[in-house]
Amino acid sequence: MLYFIGLGLGDTKDITVKGLEIIKQCSRVYLEAYTSILTVGKEALEEFYGRELILADRDMVEQEAEEILKGADVSNVAFLVVGDPFGATTHSDLVLRAVNAGIEYRVIHNASIMNAVGCCGLQLYNFGETVSIVFWTDTWRPESFYDKIHRNRENGLHTLCLLDIKVKEQSMENLLRGRKIYEPPRYMSVSQAAEQLLEIVQNRRERKEDLGFTEDTICVGLARVGAEDQAIRAGSLRQLASCDLGGPLHSLIVTGHLHPLELDMLRLSAVEPATLQGLKTLDSSTYTS
Amino acid sequence: MLYFIGLGLGDTKDITVKGLEIIKQCSRVYLEAYTSILTVGKEALEEFYGRELILADRDMVEQEAEEILKGADVSNVAFLVVGDPFGATTHSDLVLRAVNAGIEYRVIHNASIMNAVGCCGLQLYNFGETVSIVFWTDTWRPESFYDKIHRNRENGLHTLCLLDIKVKEQSMENLLRGRKIYEPPRYMSVSQAAEQLLEIVQNRRERKEDLGFTEDTICVGLARVGAEDQAIRAGSLRQLASCDLGGPLHSLIVTGHLHPLELDMLRLSAVEPATLQGLKTLDSSTYTS
Repeated sequence: MLYFIGLGLGDTKDITVKGLEIIKQCSRVYLEAYTSILTVGKEALEEFYGRELILADRDMVEQEAEEILKGADVSNVAFLVVGDPFGATTHSDLVLRAVNAGIEYRVIHNASIMNAVGCCGLQLYNFGETVSIVFWTDTWRPESFYDKIHRNRENGLHTLCLLDIKVKEQSMENLLRGRKIYEPPRYMSVSQAAEQLLEIVQNRRERKEDLGFTEDTICVGLARVGAEDQAIRAGSLRQLASCDLGGPLHSLIVTGHLHPLELDMLRLSAVEPATLQGLKTLDSSTYTS
Repeated sequence: MLYFIGLGLGDTKDITVKGLEIIKQCSRVYLEAYTSILTVGKEALEEFYGRELILADRDMVEQEAEEILKGADVSNVAFLVVGDPFGATTHSDLVLRAVNAGIEYRVIHNASIMNAVGCCGLQLYNFGETVSIVFWTDTWRPESFYDKIHRNRENGLHTLCLLDIKVKEQSMENLLRGRKIYEPPRYMSVSQAAEQLLEIVQNRRERKEDLGFTEDTICVGLARVGAEDQAIRAGSLRQLASCDLGGPLHSLIVTGHLHPLELDMLRLSAVEPATLQGLKTLDSSTYTS
């Protein structure tokens, strides 16, 4: 049996009792290590589980899947994923390979950022499509996520923005020379994401295009959701651009229509209480300051 | 401290290690028992935790919140919720009451149906707004959820439909006479939800309105997600209307644009393999048979 086991979002103890029991009786245990991170590292997990973990990076999962599946038809193999195994990144490819090889699989679910964001007080059924905000480079500055946020807001819906993670990236030079030297991991912060959104707002204003939202739109920054030191800050997009929420991982929400109860919850984590006090209904689907 | 602890979706062992540790050292433990259910009952949870649980129904949470909060400023009280505490139903009201009473709170997250549906192979970031499908009565047959599904599909997005739960409902007669006699709980099945959607499709066709989807649109029925005996069936809306997925809880997904990898995953749980084999792209955002 191949077990896909979610680890949740915080530290070692966010695994489920069921997940932990299964890990202890598997012959091999892999740790997927490229789509998300916990607040603790591989060593802390190994100590807590009493098991050695095999790091599975993107190359391994994509190119050496047979290695992971080996023997899973006669013994138990675990594949650990931060969050839920079918959260922000799914592992459909590995599931399909297992099924094609006649290997049974089972999923042990856990919290992922896709549902845990509800802790800020915005209701999950008021969210539209989730978007990813990628790190811009000098030459590549896509704005496609902006249009999706805009569309969600037109329907009164909030948008969860997953922020870019760069792990095991090679510099162009190292890539061209075939040197397996990796850059330090980079995790986009709420302030970096807000800066990029502000720049798009500015660009569209100059091009006299439909804005969809502005510097004053209420957003929520979240960091290390589920961990002891999680941080949640609600304020205008402009305010969040200068908010330091500490270490990774960060997520950003651009709000749509705010229900009064949602607003009461956001006030608990206001950057500036006055910003959220002064909100008035502009139309049936937008609050603004 | 008031702890909101998610129990996950399956049985006793889907609680996290952290959640279980906290329960064991709380002075009182409440079990929220009106928005969702596990495959096991209160007694099984009490035995596993080694603790007595106090059932908190909707009346208690809404009208006797002070009782739940009592002493939580000086000792620890746990409030257990099936799924995640901020999943399909949030407990913002209780959070706000706690904060106003000067009581700290903390959330221990877990899987909820809002993220665990990813196990069927449809990617969570391709979902639009979640809708609720309510039990129709002879005189009340709302169609508003249909329009939201339609709008999601126009944007190529899947729709998670949460299906109605009727717990501790009184008959009109008992309500009028003030008798606290409750009807047996009712949980909407995938086939019941599909029947209601088929009826709306038929109504709109007769009124010559824009359909959005038809009897042939690919849907996914899910039952007891996360439990050992979970069931997932993918097929046309018409096929799902005659699918018996067993005991509660059920959920239904109406698909939007299907990515080839999503389609490969759905084929693993096809009602009729031929239905999902014959899919062709009709336009950029819709597959149909």
